[in-house]
Amino acid sequence: MSARQDIYSQLSYGAQEIGFGKKPGIVVVDFQTAFTDSKFPMGGRPLVMRALENTTRILEVARRGNVPIASCYTAYKSERDMPYWKITTVVEQFRYGHPCTELDRRIYDPDYDFVVCKSGPSIFFHTPVVSYFNKEGVDTVIITGCNTSGCIRASAIDSFQYGYRTVIPEDCVGDMDQKPHRDNLRDIGRRYADISSLGEVIAYLKKVRKHNPRRGCR
Amino acid sequence: MSARQDIYSQLSYGAQEIGFGKKPGIVVVDFQTAFTDSKFPMGGRPLVMRALENTTRILEVARRGNVPIASCYTAYKSERDMPYWKITTVVEQFRYGHPCTELDRRIYDPDYDFVVCKSGPSIFFHTPVVSYFNKEGVDTVIITGCNTSGCIRASAIDSFQYGYRTVIPEDCVGDMDQKPHRDNLRDIGRRYADISSLGEVIAYLKKVRKHNPRRGCR
Amino acid sequence: MSARQDIYSQLSYGAQEIGFGKKPGIVVVDFQTAFTDSKFPMGGRPLVMRALENTTRILEVARRGNVPIASCYTAYKSERDMPYWKITTVVEQFRYGHPCTELDRRIYDPDYDFVVCKSGPSIFFHTPVVSYFNKEGVDTVIITGCNTSGCIRASAIDSFQYGYRTVIPEDCVGDMDQKPHRDNLRDIGRRYADISSLGEVIAYLKKVRKHNPRRGCR
Amino acid sequence: MSARQDIYSQLSYGAQEIGFGKKPGIVVVDFQTAFTDSKFPMGGRPLVMRALENTTRILEVARRGNVPIASCYTAYKSERDMPYWKITTVVEQFRYGHPCTELDRRIYDPDYDFVVCKSGPSIFFHTPVVSYFNKEGVDTVIITGCNTSGCIRASAIDSFQYGYRTVIPEDCVGDMDQKPHRDNLRDIGRRYADISSLGEVIAYLKKVRKHNPRRGCR
Repeated sequence: MSARQDIYSQLSYGAQEIGFGKKPGIVVVDFQTAFTDSKFPMGGRPLVMRALENTTRILEVARRGNVPIASCYTAYKSERDMPYWKITTVVEQFRYGHPCTELDRRIYDPDYDFVVCKSGPSIFFHTPVVSYFNKEGVDTVIITGCNTSGCIRASAIDSFQYGYRTVIPEDCVGDMDQKPHRDNLRDIGRRYADISSLGEVIAYLKKVRKHNPRRGCR
Repeated sequence: MSARQDIYSQLSYGAQEIGFGKKPGIVVVDFQTAFTDSKFPMGGRPLVMRALENTTRILEVARRGNVPIASCYTAYKSERDMPYWKITTVVEQFRYGHPCTELDRRIYDPDYDFVVCKSGPSIFFHTPVVSYFNKEGVDTVIITGCNTSGCIRASAIDSFQYGYRTVIPEDCVGDMDQKPHRDNLRDIGRRYADISSLGEVIAYLKKVRKHNPRRGCR
Repeated sequence: MSARQDIYSQLSYGAQEIGFGKKPGIVVVDFQTAFTDSKFPMGGRPLVMRALENTTRILEVARRGNVPIASCYTAYKSERDMPYWKITTVVEQFRYGHPCTELDRRIYDPDYDFVVCKSGPSIFFHTPVVSYFNKEGVDTVIITGCNTSGCIRASAIDSFQYGYRTVIPEDCVGDMDQKPHRDNLRDIGRRYADISSLGEVIAYLKKVRKHNPRRGCR
Repeated sequence: MSARQDIYSQLSYGAQEIGFGKKPGIVVVDFQTAFTDSKFPMGGRPLVMRALENTTRILEVARRGNVPIASCYTAYKSERDMPYWKITTVVEQFRYGHPCTELDRRIYDPDYDFVVCKSGPSIFFHTPVVSYFNKEGVDTVIITGCNTSGCIRASAIDSFQYGYRTVIPEDCVGDMDQKPHRDNLRDIGRRYADISSLGEVIAYLKKVRKHNPRRGCR
């Protein structure tokens, strides 16, 4: 059965195109070593590493254009302040100061990026990212990071709920495995966000930059 | 490949059991006629109708036990206050006063249920439900309604993020089609919530009621 | 002691001017008959009636310029979903459907204004107003309504916290009595918002309108 | 004019007593050196130093009783992620790593307290404190810290809005000067919270502890 014929398409899911707006902001979700370094149990999975590499290219262009970048990692002080995670590795290792909570250096510019420690799956939940984007006048949120079936899905829902145009370049988000990655892009693309690609996003960022040359200071 | 052998299970996803707490609260998501009445394009799908019928049984027991129930529907004044939905039917029909936004009478007791109009997929997003549950001392959120791959997923994430024990009786949530229903219960069950059943939840509610007999007034 | 000499001024409180931005949004807080109709115990106080009259003039200009307007009232289903209010009249009368929760017709255009029922003092708390303003690209929030020492103070804090430029025309907000009205404008003006006037806000809205003539549709 | 005779009292403001609940949580707002060390311009004011000293006594009892403590400081990466503060000293000095953002050692136990960096005046705004308290089953929030006319007022509003019983021991919160301190306790006490004292709160915490002896682990 083709995409055109599935029940969701028949019912008009995914029928509205959102499109890019005038003022992008980038979120970079959980590219911490827990997921990007193969020395940790969940680290170094192929889809995540592809996303990491592609995201570095987006961030380079974004930084040259003075586009706001908000990056996050997930960590807790103890089990008391942690929600009821069902993943043992998260419960045991995602603690303040644990090496698995460090942002991967390949995506992180400490002089430029705004970084928050988040407590739930969504980068917007209980963090100041929405206030930051508000002040910057962001109308379009580009979502990168991992994992598609966890924190990307949650961040996409919140970006949508906050009234942003939401875009997910599918090769800039990754997961432990192909199937949940694809299933979640399918669900998100039907409802909340345009599913795009590295190439399209780079072209958009370059176009925006031409129209809004970087001011002298930030 | 069995569930035991998939990469997520190997990586400890889903390994932690959450369990029921002492003080339940029920959320009933979007059982509005748009989804429960077949005269509307998305209405009357089998999984949703099964969920509706099962949820009535949970609510009966809950009301007898004085358990807080928060119910919601989705509606907007105009496109201006609506997020960028990709579903044409939602954009065109989910408006204040449109008959498709009425709660189905089979799940709705206007004298008992606390009802909110929500603007995003999650029943907790920009609604007072968390304050209501806070004041009631709720520690366990039972999620019912539709659709599993949309508002149920979003509500489950928020329930988890707010620190509640979250339980989804799988036969009390529904969707347009089987596959996304199952895919999302799989993702949620790996991370945020216990996937349970009508029978288990009824048994739990009866047990709680026995330990906390209803006070004379509410 | 002059304003220049008080300890707060010496410590640089209030020293930064914020200024108007490019895209205004208006919030109208709790102009419900409980406060605007003298048949209710708290209704018809002079500062509130002055604010009501002045606000109608702002809203007229705003509507002609297609400026987003979010209006709210406060009401509850029962004491269960109500926070721990210390005001007996609020506890007893602010219920869904009670005549004291109706918006005053002088400030309310049902065809234009976006109206929410709020549960706490702030118009932004657990309501979709921030998502609405986000989608509209609002960068400057103008606050009108009552009461200065209650819901205006709370709404000003949230507007500030969300990253908006916040402006309070002091003759468009009111209270039961002069002193708390002035005390709160003093505290807010030191930290979060520019204290302005009806005249200045009208002039600003007219200037914005000239630069952004109304589009044909909304 | 006595308190009984003012217009607010006549209108039933402050008439409802809230009372302590069963499960306290303590918030400690902005006891950072900017306010507690006289080497910084706003540091070392008498009301703040009194509050600091009194709060240490509350925290000692709270820690022995395993009561959750959430402490915060305010800091930013740059002006980009900072709301429009009108206080020059905050704009210039409240930056990550600046010595004025360090918590005062007299109120801070790094092994016990849950600490968040907040971005607005309220300790609950865009921080995980409400999720932490939710998971701990907190029903009563005791507010300590500074400044009464800024972050204490904002935190009290949010505590109230989230449905908690809110208590402010007046000698455990401080400000630059007496008048705004008193004005804000007056406004808060009329609406949102019980104004209490060090002695009452200590007595309450000891009583709770007796009924809920500390479990062996946390």
